[in-house]
Amino acid sequence: MEDIQFEIKEADKYTIINYFLAKPIEPEKLKSIVPPKVNPQKGVIISGKGPIWLYGFLIHHYHSTKFVATYDPRLGGGVIVESHSPDWDTGDTIKVEINY
Amino acid sequence: MEDIQFEIKEADKYTIINYFLAKPIEPEKLKSIVPPKVNPQKGVIISGKGPIWLYGFLIHHYHSTKFVATYDPRLGGGVIVESHSPDWDTGDTIKVEINY
Repeated sequence: MEDIQFEIKEADKYTIINYFLAKPIEPEKLKSIVPPKVNPQKGVIISGKGPIWLYGFLIHHYHSTKFVATYDPRLGGGVIVESHSPDWDTGDTIKVEINY
Repeated sequence: MEDIQFEIKEADKYTIINYFLAKPIEPEKLKSIVPPKVNPQKGVIISGKGPIWLYGFLIHHYHSTKFVATYDPRLGGGVIVESHSPDWDTGDTIKVEINY
């Protein structure tokens, strides 16, 4: 099993990218991770249990998509952290259901 | 007291940006937060106890600096999540001491 696995779910306007770690990840791994390709015409919602710097890496990786959100289980949705479209605002929460 | 306060520490090659939350933050606050200005010739290390989407917002905000790292207390350093300089590599950890 890979150290990190990605699961993709497509919605009309965004792609949900759920990652799973087989074991605690080391920062050095960021040098070799290849996140899945997505349609940049849509936004992405990133989800998974892992360190903030892994999220940071993924957020930067997907910054050319329409928007980037991170899933917050307490809120039951993805919070938009950056947007390149007037249709989506930073700070908005997109309700989605993600079952870990 | 503001909902979020920032403390800045300057090192030669990076700025440490430590944030403090007076109370749990709501996503909507991302619409009004004004992070401190930094010297983009340096990198930034972001630190603080808060949600991943707050980090995501700050990481994106500082993407025009030399590099962006997030502080991981378990590692005792900032992990570089994006770099725009050959001197700094994504996945490298910069040892720093941050006392919360």
